Amino acid sequence: MKLKMMYSFLNSDINIIEKTLEETVVAESPLLHQASLHLLQAGGKRIRPVFVLLGGKFGNYDIHVMKNVAVALELIHMASLVHDDVIDDAEIRRGQPTIKAKWDNRIAMYTGDYIFARSLELMTNITNPLAHKILSDTIVELCVGEIEQIKDKYRFDQHLRDYLRRIKRKTALLIAASCQLGAVTANVDESVQKKLYQFGYYVGMSFQITDDVLDFVGTEKVLGKPAGGDLLQGNITLPVLFAMENEEIYPEIVKVHENMDRNEIVRIIELIKQSGAIEKSIAISDRYLVKALDILKELPDNRAKKTLRDIAHFIGKRKF
Amino acid sequence: MKLKMMYSFLNSDINIIEKTLEETVVAESPLLHQASLHLLQAGGKRIRPVFVLLGGKFGNYDIHVMKNVAVALELIHMASLVHDDVIDDAEIRRGQPTIKAKWDNRIAMYTGDYIFARSLELMTNITNPLAHKILSDTIVELCVGEIEQIKDKYRFDQHLRDYLRRIKRKTALLIAASCQLGAVTANVDESVQKKLYQFGYYVGMSFQITDDVLDFVGTEKVLGKPAGGDLLQGNITLPVLFAMENEEIYPEIVKVHENMDRNEIVRIIELIKQSGAIEKSIAISDRYLVKALDILKELPDNRAKKTLRDIAHFIGKRKF
Repeated sequence: MKLKMMYSFLNSDINIIEKTLEETVVAESPLLHQASLHLLQAGGKRIRPVFVLLGGKFGNYDIHVMKNVAVALELIHMASLVHDDVIDDAEIRRGQPTIKAKWDNRIAMYTGDYIFARSLELMTNITNPLAHKILSDTIVELCVGEIEQIKDKYRFDQHLRDYLRRIKRKTALLIAASCQLGAVTANVDESVQKKLYQFGYYVGMSFQITDDVLDFVGTEKVLGKPAGGDLLQGNITLPVLFAMENEEIYPEIVKVHENMDRNEIVRIIELIKQSGAIEKSIAISDRYLVKALDILKELPDNRAKKTLRDIAHFIGKRKF
Repeated sequence: MKLKMMYSFLNSDINIIEKTLEETVVAESPLLHQASLHLLQAGGKRIRPVFVLLGGKFGNYDIHVMKNVAVALELIHMASLVHDDVIDDAEIRRGQPTIKAKWDNRIAMYTGDYIFARSLELMTNITNPLAHKILSDTIVELCVGEIEQIKDKYRFDQHLRDYLRRIKRKTALLIAASCQLGAVTANVDESVQKKLYQFGYYVGMSFQITDDVLDFVGTEKVLGKPAGGDLLQGNITLPVLFAMENEEIYPEIVKVHENMDRNEIVRIIELIKQSGAIEKSIAISDRYLVKALDILKELPDNRAKKTLRDIAHFIGKRKF
């Protein structure tokens, strides 16, 4: 089943989200408007808005309130991607030229800032102070995660816990916040809010580990960029950490540097793939998934719960 | 009289602001903490916090509420400076190496993001939705202003209104918002809020024009960077626009480009200074100042009003 099919009962609401996304980034400045629309139209799974909406389905769900939070979360995610592309010097994202490639780094930085500011503007429609507290705390952690990721680049002596802390900040907390904020906005019981947060956290961890695995095993066509990009850029992900446990592969990996020959990188990627590191990584991802599914069992039965379960299963098996 | 002397009655509150600034940027990540502290310790006039506090003095002033807004405004200003330095490729700010010079561009971008996120976190202590609306709208305009500034660089066919719109977004709106938010936070009457906003707007316009004049007439020692930097970077400020009205100087100015010889730039700066453009610019700055002082007359008499008047006069005469 395709991801979008799983939440087809939300279709009309997702359309409202898409429309609100476009309306929100409208800018007087043609350059800014073009850059923002370019980003929107490159697509994306809109998984954060979906989590917001599903979280809201456990309470008093009003799409015209929910949409503010759902769109804000997607915009924050997009803004962080734009800034990531500046840092990573990325030319391609989702098979499309990045803003920094199409315009330049300066435009990309301020487009990120702008999209972020627009998301805050949307959030002012939400009066619950708790929602603002959760969101701003999450954004602080996201920024700390980004800085840590830079600091940890090409640092081959790091541990599993460094990696897990990084992906928690970089990915899992924003997904956890999406689920929780949906619930907070819809005035869901606090105990359910907390469980949705935990569900989002575990799913987010699993999601990012799968992403990091796919960077090794995915094809260029599916990834929209060449495989092994993370390692080449010095991002030490879970498969790399596991592969470094192998004494023969370790000295090969620590040789990786930014301007390494493509053939050499391809050879090291093959070594990592053959080391069993992929399988071990998938096992860790699965473990988080099981935790997510366990939490779900404690939630009241409804269509949203069933959908969250489907999405979690999908994330565990996704190939893109 | 020195600026700080004018608001010496706020001294103990300013100390609380400084302390809160330091506490707010504390980061688990040593790199992030160092970079943020480096920025704080480079000083600055803290003029935005002072405007917040003075705005609050027209109403129910509680420093432990006010400080959240005052510090948030200063942090937002600082975050925008850090991102500016990335864009301008600046090595020096306030006589200190910039974050991008001391670390690198990637660290600078995320330090800006981080400081900004921390300011939002502080703002969650303020429950009045109007405060959040004003702030987020201002930040959107700030970002639009930044993008417009990039777009308008080295564009010699622009008009006075382009310049005025740019400095409005870049500077005046944030100062206007500082005055207004102080008032909003202290539950000041709406009519007084609006007048404080207008006062801040006019002062901000005057302030930025003076800044742009000082970039031509200031000494390197006072500016903390070589004179004429704006023009060299393609920022067409008011003195440049006035000088271009002179048919003999016009063709010299449009030759300016990024890698121009320093002697050549120095010669063009001299031409601009001798063209009468500085005096004309100062006259415009003064006109905004008069408007600011006129608005003040409509406000209830108190110490804050007197201080706002002193600061406005100071801004009109400042040499740094």
